Amino acid sequence: MTDDLDLLVIGAHPDDAEVHVGGILALAARNGLRAGILDLTAGDLGTRGSAATRRDEAMASAAILGVERTILDLPDARFDEGEANRLKLMEQFRALRPAVVILPAPEDRHPDHRRAFRLGQDAAYYAGLKNYPCPGTPWRPQAVAWVGGETPGAPDLVVDVSAVWEQRMAALDAFGSQFRPDPSQPPTRISDPAFRRGVEGRAMHWGSLIVVSWAEALWTVRPIPPALLALLGKLR
Amino acid sequence: MTDDLDLLVIGAHPDDAEVHVGGILALAARNGLRAGILDLTAGDLGTRGSAATRRDEAMASAAILGVERTILDLPDARFDEGEANRLKLMEQFRALRPAVVILPAPEDRHPDHRRAFRLGQDAAYYAGLKNYPCPGTPWRPQAVAWVGGETPGAPDLVVDVSAVWEQRMAALDAFGSQFRPDPSQPPTRISDPAFRRGVEGRAMHWGSLIVVSWAEALWTVRPIPPALLALLGKLR
Amino acid sequence: MTDDLDLLVIGAHPDDAEVHVGGILALAARNGLRAGILDLTAGDLGTRGSAATRRDEAMASAAILGVERTILDLPDARFDEGEANRLKLMEQFRALRPAVVILPAPEDRHPDHRRAFRLGQDAAYYAGLKNYPCPGTPWRPQAVAWVGGETPGAPDLVVDVSAVWEQRMAALDAFGSQFRPDPSQPPTRISDPAFRRGVEGRAMHWGSLIVVSWAEALWTVRPIPPALLALLGKLR
Amino acid sequence: MTDDLDLLVIGAHPDDAEVHVGGILALAARNGLRAGILDLTAGDLGTRGSAATRRDEAMASAAILGVERTILDLPDARFDEGEANRLKLMEQFRALRPAVVILPAPEDRHPDHRRAFRLGQDAAYYAGLKNYPCPGTPWRPQAVAWVGGETPGAPDLVVDVSAVWEQRMAALDAFGSQFRPDPSQPPTRISDPAFRRGVEGRAMHWGSLIVVSWAEALWTVRPIPPALLALLGKLR
Amino acid sequence: MTDDLDLLVIGAHPDDAEVHVGGILALAARNGLRAGILDLTAGDLGTRGSAATRRDEAMASAAILGVERTILDLPDARFDEGEANRLKLMEQFRALRPAVVILPAPEDRHPDHRRAFRLGQDAAYYAGLKNYPCPGTPWRPQAVAWVGGETPGAPDLVVDVSAVWEQRMAALDAFGSQFRPDPSQPPTRISDPAFRRGVEGRAMHWGSLIVVSWAEALWTVRPIPPALLALLGKLR
Amino acid sequence: MTDDLDLLVIGAHPDDAEVHVGGILALAARNGLRAGILDLTAGDLGTRGSAATRRDEAMASAAILGVERTILDLPDARFDEGEANRLKLMEQFRALRPAVVILPAPEDRHPDHRRAFRLGQDAAYYAGLKNYPCPGTPWRPQAVAWVGGETPGAPDLVVDVSAVWEQRMAALDAFGSQFRPDPSQPPTRISDPAFRRGVEGRAMHWGSLIVVSWAEALWTVRPIPPALLALLGKLR
Repeated sequence: MTDDLDLLVIGAHPDDAEVHVGGILALAARNGLRAGILDLTAGDLGTRGSAATRRDEAMASAAILGVERTILDLPDARFDEGEANRLKLMEQFRALRPAVVILPAPEDRHPDHRRAFRLGQDAAYYAGLKNYPCPGTPWRPQAVAWVGGETPGAPDLVVDVSAVWEQRMAALDAFGSQFRPDPSQPPTRISDPAFRRGVEGRAMHWGSLIVVSWAEALWTVRPIPPALLALLGKLR
Repeated sequence: MTDDLDLLVIGAHPDDAEVHVGGILALAARNGLRAGILDLTAGDLGTRGSAATRRDEAMASAAILGVERTILDLPDARFDEGEANRLKLMEQFRALRPAVVILPAPEDRHPDHRRAFRLGQDAAYYAGLKNYPCPGTPWRPQAVAWVGGETPGAPDLVVDVSAVWEQRMAALDAFGSQFRPDPSQPPTRISDPAFRRGVEGRAMHWGSLIVVSWAEALWTVRPIPPALLALLGKLR
Repeated sequence: MTDDLDLLVIGAHPDDAEVHVGGILALAARNGLRAGILDLTAGDLGTRGSAATRRDEAMASAAILGVERTILDLPDARFDEGEANRLKLMEQFRALRPAVVILPAPEDRHPDHRRAFRLGQDAAYYAGLKNYPCPGTPWRPQAVAWVGGETPGAPDLVVDVSAVWEQRMAALDAFGSQFRPDPSQPPTRISDPAFRRGVEGRAMHWGSLIVVSWAEALWTVRPIPPALLALLGKLR
Repeated sequence: MTDDLDLLVIGAHPDDAEVHVGGILALAARNGLRAGILDLTAGDLGTRGSAATRRDEAMASAAILGVERTILDLPDARFDEGEANRLKLMEQFRALRPAVVILPAPEDRHPDHRRAFRLGQDAAYYAGLKNYPCPGTPWRPQAVAWVGGETPGAPDLVVDVSAVWEQRMAALDAFGSQFRPDPSQPPTRISDPAFRRGVEGRAMHWGSLIVVSWAEALWTVRPIPPALLALLGKLR
Repeated sequence: MTDDLDLLVIGAHPDDAEVHVGGILALAARNGLRAGILDLTAGDLGTRGSAATRRDEAMASAAILGVERTILDLPDARFDEGEANRLKLMEQFRALRPAVVILPAPEDRHPDHRRAFRLGQDAAYYAGLKNYPCPGTPWRPQAVAWVGGETPGAPDLVVDVSAVWEQRMAALDAFGSQFRPDPSQPPTRISDPAFRRGVEGRAMHWGSLIVVSWAEALWTVRPIPPALLALLGKLR
Repeated sequence: MTDDLDLLVIGAHPDDAEVHVGGILALAARNGLRAGILDLTAGDLGTRGSAATRRDEAMASAAILGVERTILDLPDARFDEGEANRLKLMEQFRALRPAVVILPAPEDRHPDHRRAFRLGQDAAYYAGLKNYPCPGTPWRPQAVAWVGGETPGAPDLVVDVSAVWEQRMAALDAFGSQFRPDPSQPPTRISDPAFRRGVEGRAMHWGSLIVVSWAEALWTVRPIPPALLALLGKLR
């Protein structure tokens, strides 16, 4: 048995992982797999909540899900795709050694998500290059997948997360500064109840495709990587 | 003021219109527009419910929505795209004179829906040809739109139907033979609660895109037809 | 244990199955699964070889692969998509009860292949309708996949068929009338050695994607059907 | 007669040109055209082979093909898309004056290839701007094309390279450090025999589309540039 | 020298060929090639002009262009895709022996155009099957291309038709019953000056892509068929 | 009444706005709306005309259209996508407060246009982030649209600009250094009459789609933003 991660989910901000694949993470933990979240930023430019608050919320959420969490502290909204940031991700990949990586949506509405996708995709490849001047032992994830943007088409794969749905929503709700209606705070798109309903609605829609109550969705390259199928096969 | 329909929704089977655009129909009626449903078949091959039952349910649903309904009685699952069926649709278009027509999804899982799309699309065009040997005064709908299939991508247009959501679901539930859990009947894909949750889930998802509780979605040609925009502008 | 087929491959002509998925069929047989081929026609309009010759070749090939074979004897090139032909396929689906069906390419160069795809796709759905007037017990395949056309893009799934490559090519070569260079016969596109090289070349290309010698490729709907993944998981 | 290049192939690393269009290059030389390769890097981060070894191999390969070769010595894997690198390419375009440029695949698996595509595409345009502060006489290639990634779809154009196939593979094999099975060296994706089989397999597949033994494939903009068609018309 | 056609353009109605590729036809004639038009119907259901008028106009237009013309007299708007109609096209292909066939747009607004595309595409393939029970010697066109619909994207190929523009518009204008403003006749979409302006506008747009005054556009399969390139190479 | 802009059009160079949406700008002004142009650069690297000349021309054109104009003076062709430039756009968005922003084409031939699209798209989002360290009050445009590149497909929306066509072309012609045939100046792609004909031709083509003389076209996200529809509804 190794310390390698079975699954690493990358988000641009704390709560991104929970919005999209909280159920998959909870299921992985429940099935004895090692799963983790890597947030590129602490969400320090968010309209609501300080970086400190969001960090506490993020750690509480990870505890609920039963997964590891690292916050990379790149500057929110302002991180670029240059080599310095790429190296930070490469180091993480080499240290965590994930079999499968899940990235943000490549075509999302939020520019941070699009940039985090490209940064993560490149770093996952380069981390495997033996001679790249970067600390750590070379490691290339066996599969890279990603979540859907705001208006996703047909998913490549759906995962029944009914068994952990309450746990998964509790993890989302741990981000009280972001999603809790709070008249003392400025309204944001994601603090409106419609945003949380969108999370639930998509899970109900994807669930209907496989005739279960709640499901989450993933997209990936062609051909579908066997390592991704192997991971999903262990989520019961 | 004329008798022309502002909106005609075509379904392959009774309940298709309600599954996808019950809210748009209810909103149209509520705003004083003339709206109707044209079911190509009575759903007489459905696994549950007789044709007679489904007809009663369909009429009850239309009453709930406040719209007209015609059932064309083509043979369920067995109607073809030949000229005889095309003429039946052309006659309806010429009699009902809809400004906007909403068709089933062109890429749906159910072959009837795909075929109904093609039949409806062709008939809408041909109904406007002066010399086509078909009863009635030539009429071509000013806009043709369609609903999404089971795994729809980003919609062209979304309509806030929050104001009529309960009415719209009551209309769907009027099809008790189809959607009501009933252990005495054989289980079907659409009688599973997951199906109804899919309807709700998509409406929550589309609602989240425009920050409302419930929305329905439409797809159409490029450029977006002005008559369709004009119709949607009247739905409040 | 049942008599249900684990896999049914549909071709428009004898040899279509062998051109595209001979290796998958051989692997299925080798792993103790029940697999079959259903040829819609006997290839009776082919430029080379009589219908009788092709039938003999087809049966010899099926024996080499270790699978069942049925030739439906629709008229080559001239079968239409009407209900009579649909019923013939539905009856086969109800009799053979395949878990997974593999169809010809929907966008192939040969019109027969495109038509066979549509006919098979529709019949697979309708065969599950309890009340459809068709002999047999209702049965709907749990997954439908298809092969690539002549210029396929990235495959959804690739299957390592290195272990059965010689057996698979022997099955193809059993169709001597079609693929064997024979100066006494009129040349055809598929009797040119370049055609056979295309079969090998694609298998080498797909193999390179998963770092094996020979692979075959499949395409399917979204989300990827679990029954298809389950089947492929049994092919070693 | 001028010194302008008829064709310039750009690779991110030595051997990229040979992997994809070695045959087109050999054919160009054989037909008396001036063709060249521009490698953006010396492949100095490759897992196998030093930069010096790879440079020697690259020059040997160019000699086999009968084409010119320039290695730009940008840092392997670490070159960015900034203006300094763009200027280096612009200078090359202005010095070599190619009629047609072939770029790496825009959607390849290797991030270097995607970046080299974008850098080359931009530089080819800007090199023609009279007032851009860059040494040399303004020059804009008349056509830009590109090679396929690892899972290419239908090619825009295929070129019969059967006449030079052995020469073309000899050029590839000149990169012994990269492709030769050598147990003393760490295994890489491209040193596995499956990689070389992929090169052969795609050429057999593309050959089958035009009924020849071996072919290479190109992609380009719409409408297809006449200068590209003119070049390919000279390759016999 | 043979009687084989170098080019055959298929339209659903007289004037379809002239709307889209009148310039290509005129250029072909001017360069000594044999070109022809095959109209599937006489346009007998058109809102304006009788079948007799349209036939006279069609013949006058063909004379202006210098090409042959055959009117197949399938019933306007009502021809189906059954085998009887397919055979009529196959016979024409076998009699006219065109190297290149240009079909209507597969995704046009007019259902006749979509159906004519499919019928023509299938017939072009089947006409080459030696044993298909159809009069004539087997013949398969070496290339099939098609015109754009009403909202075409980037064309595959554009042809400079500046040299024959006036001749080409004179041929279009020969269809006086269709395009001439005539208050005594019912207005139609194509009798509005905006329609003729659309023909001119697209030719100006396509011309701008290759820096000429007027151009026409074609679409085709991948890879681009050499026979199509060869034909276009002869149009000066 | 506020000083907020109803519409802001962003171009990479002066004249970009006029090439694509001069008519929409003129219509907006004519209907009493506040519209403006933001040119990222002064076009100082253009082959013809100095930066000073182009600035004068740009101001004259804006006066003809009746709109505001700001030239941001980023370096032509050499501006990057870094944060410094992003901040300059964000400041403009926060100062001008546009309801709708129109960007250059994301897939244009000119790299500046592609880069300006991405820069504008990102800045429009980030300008709304309350805590982003940038001068001004947070502001996010309610809708972002874009123009077509050189070979655009079907537009999402078309706008009848017949009423202002002469005014719109006068604004384009105000850029005499760019579009006027002038033998004393080096020829450029856009000084060739074919370029101006392309502008006219596309407007005639798009006009034909809605049966008017001249129209302009826009593309946008899905679902179509209501704010964009609202703006277009005011253009008469």
